[in-house]
Amino acid sequence: MSNRKSISAAASRISAYVRHTPVLRVSLGTGSPVALKLELLQHAGSFKPRGAFNRLLSADRPAGGVIAASGGNHGAAVAYAARSLGISAEIFVPSATPAAKVARIASYGAHVVQGGETYAEALVASRRRQAETGALEVHAYDHADVLAGQGTVGREFEQDAPDLTHILVAAGGGGLIGGVAAWYAGSAEIIGVEPEGCPALHDALRAGKPVDAPVGGLASDSLGARQVGALMFPIAQRFVSQAVLVTDEAILAAQRLLWDQFRLVVEPGGATAAAALLSGRFVPPDGARVGVVVCGANTDPAKISG
Amino acid sequence: MSNRKSISAAASRISAYVRHTPVLRVSLGTGSPVALKLELLQHAGSFKPRGAFNRLLSADRPAGGVIAASGGNHGAAVAYAARSLGISAEIFVPSATPAAKVARIASYGAHVVQGGETYAEALVASRRRQAETGALEVHAYDHADVLAGQGTVGREFEQDAPDLTHILVAAGGGGLIGGVAAWYAGSAEIIGVEPEGCPALHDALRAGKPVDAPVGGLASDSLGARQVGALMFPIAQRFVSQAVLVTDEAILAAQRLLWDQFRLVVEPGGATAAAALLSGRFVPPDGARVGVVVCGANTDPAKISG
Repeated sequence: MSNRKSISAAASRISAYVRHTPVLRVSLGTGSPVALKLELLQHAGSFKPRGAFNRLLSADRPAGGVIAASGGNHGAAVAYAARSLGISAEIFVPSATPAAKVARIASYGAHVVQGGETYAEALVASRRRQAETGALEVHAYDHADVLAGQGTVGREFEQDAPDLTHILVAAGGGGLIGGVAAWYAGSAEIIGVEPEGCPALHDALRAGKPVDAPVGGLASDSLGARQVGALMFPIAQRFVSQAVLVTDEAILAAQRLLWDQFRLVVEPGGATAAAALLSGRFVPPDGARVGVVVCGANTDPAKISG
Repeated sequence: MSNRKSISAAASRISAYVRHTPVLRVSLGTGSPVALKLELLQHAGSFKPRGAFNRLLSADRPAGGVIAASGGNHGAAVAYAARSLGISAEIFVPSATPAAKVARIASYGAHVVQGGETYAEALVASRRRQAETGALEVHAYDHADVLAGQGTVGREFEQDAPDLTHILVAAGGGGLIGGVAAWYAGSAEIIGVEPEGCPALHDALRAGKPVDAPVGGLASDSLGARQVGALMFPIAQRFVSQAVLVTDEAILAAQRLLWDQFRLVVEPGGATAAAALLSGRFVPPDGARVGVVVCGANTDPAKISG
């Protein structure tokens, strides 16, 4: 169960290994100032090392190394964490994973296996391999230790910006938003944001259970889970107040604005939460104090300036 | 005179107009953790709006608008500040100013005049024009209000990281390092860092007075002052403990590392202070707690990933 206690325990466990990322208060021209949690400055360029370290540090040291399937960011995080702890890693990614992410995973010394169309297919391949090697699986989102690790983003955000009333978080498989929602547990409104092409959380909340959703568009390499995780779903039902969808055009515009006004290079999935505010898909009520988690940077910077 | 009092007054004056930029504590593999002051996330992509706002808000509202000469960042800052305050701006830049910086200055609604080889020539041209228009000159570094404004970087850094013993700051005309040194006033060691191609502070400290220095290399558009300012020089003599020179190769390596490990897009002048630490030109003594001001982002992101 992910709750404030397990998240605080995760924070203690991983604190020597992850960065406490800063908060920047800015005006986005959408009313009151907005607090940006700059989690894109985390090791390996996204929030994912938090969950990966919490999983690895909570388990017995795996004789057969670790194994993970990923769209890219989780793979980079597991590779980074495994190298930090002196453990070998094997990472399965689909063909859609950008070359920059594959190169980054390999740069941390992991063995990368690329194949299949989607994250779901890479997961199947990784599990087949895991049955042979006995490696420790680090799931990208649907594991209690991973959720609790990602929840430390919420814990830091509350420490550094205790006044927030509404927090926008992108959702893919839901590890980050599940952890953040578990941390706040209703003390701030949590708004999930997804691309129209990857509406897994939106569709699950509407259906009352995790259901298959389309996987497509600009941010699918980081937010393209077929379903949200079984562990995060009851947390989302209880503590996520809205699931907002944004267009790819809005994501691209948010990426450009974040570079132009703040000199932040943000990948599509990392700009998705901000896009909800900037495009007007989420309009904060009067008096709201809004926070946005900017959760990933792993793109080619050349794509930003174009 | 720039001192803690004038800098605190500047901080109050400009606080509604500038960002309090965050500090990120990281390991650079150079021993103890290092505190990075992420001043590259400031409006207009560098620390320069602090001095520009302090100058404009300290003066009577100029009927003839404002005028400035700049390698680029100061011009962008003056244009940004002038637009924020509803004042017209005319900015003179040399031919070496990168197209991205010219475009940015123009994007803030300023009239840009490009010509001459160096900042010094642009300054001469701007003063000729100022004599015609009577506009308020905002000097890029050699004015007490500009120095006090830049000193607010030091004030924030001390607030957010009060334990630092050594602070690395890049030097061009010396507005930033002069202001930061005036703030700390000996309570931390201030180390000036310059490219070998632009050693104005290094040469001045050796000569005992500001002297003409070469202007060249990768960072000359932001650090290429012919001489350090007359106002900053006595501050530097008293409170800057070392002036370190770094190669262009070290600056480029620092830019790459700052992107690769921290997802920060940093221009050459902005990476110069970090380069001193990363290249070993500055080796912190045992027990030192080092801070680095990362002071500018205004480059084409495509140049980072190459």
